[in-house]
Amino acid sequence: METITAELNLVVKMTLTAWDAQNGYLNKLMDSLTDEQLAKEIAPGKNTGIYLFGHLVAVSDAMLPLMGFGEKLFPGLEKPFITSPDKSGLPMPSVAELKEKSKAINEKLASHFQSASADEWLSRHMSVSPEDFAKEPHRNKLNIVISRTGHMAYHVGQMQLLK
Amino acid sequence: METITAELNLVVKMTLTAWDAQNGYLNKLMDSLTDEQLAKEIAPGKNTGIYLFGHLVAVSDAMLPLMGFGEKLFPGLEKPFITSPDKSGLPMPSVAELKEKSKAINEKLASHFQSASADEWLSRHMSVSPEDFAKEPHRNKLNIVISRTGHMAYHVGQMQLLK
Repeated sequence: METITAELNLVVKMTLTAWDAQNGYLNKLMDSLTDEQLAKEIAPGKNTGIYLFGHLVAVSDAMLPLMGFGEKLFPGLEKPFITSPDKSGLPMPSVAELKEKSKAINEKLASHFQSASADEWLSRHMSVSPEDFAKEPHRNKLNIVISRTGHMAYHVGQMQLLK
Repeated sequence: METITAELNLVVKMTLTAWDAQNGYLNKLMDSLTDEQLAKEIAPGKNTGIYLFGHLVAVSDAMLPLMGFGEKLFPGLEKPFITSPDKSGLPMPSVAELKEKSKAINEKLASHFQSASADEWLSRHMSVSPEDFAKEPHRNKLNIVISRTGHMAYHVGQMQLLK
């Protein structure tokens, strides 16, 4: 039992390490890009760097309520960066503001991540009903981290093209 | 004990599902792109679509020996798609050939993935020594799948720009 518990904790930790690593790649990339580079499109006619960064920050913020960690810190990010496409004409925060917001969101996520037990990780996320969750136990909080890590990698690959 | 074993198996399965999903996105994207589109650069001066596809196929092939599942099926992919950058002048297989190779590799990986127990998933991969593994138990086979899933998402995000 102790061995299996240790194995379960290890796998949970591997998943969280992959999330942290992806955030690390994003932050390192953001540190290396100027505001001018971020204002450019990643490829002709495609999204701009700042839109994609804002999109990733907004998606991370939305993880808080989805995982039962409280309200979004910056609900105003949803409209320009999730429900609207790039070049919507909606006002966007500056890169510096987005970086600050990103830091606050990641700190709040990390504080919850560090204290959650394996059982909590495998409990349902807030978009699935208890009835559906009983039939589909993979719809848990840890799976949110897995899917958001892949989503971030997808856009970091695109933002890398700005270099 | 039974509950924890079930939880461990669930988390392993979630990781494999994320890998399968990413491969599904790649295959769907490849089905939607013509050879002409794949011959183009994802952004001006960057990698071509066919190079990135070949790179992903070669990286998947290299998972076989790394995970102890036998030799690579197509060792000839390493030179043009891993050790050499795009536009190296080295001959490349056609898109159709790469798709066939990709299918064969994924079938072989899937057959091993389906039969592996949680203990096998958490055993060391072939690039870490038993001594180092004793100190760093996260360097296991499952972690290869986690990192390769992120790697694939990164490049699929780029290849999506060809549409």
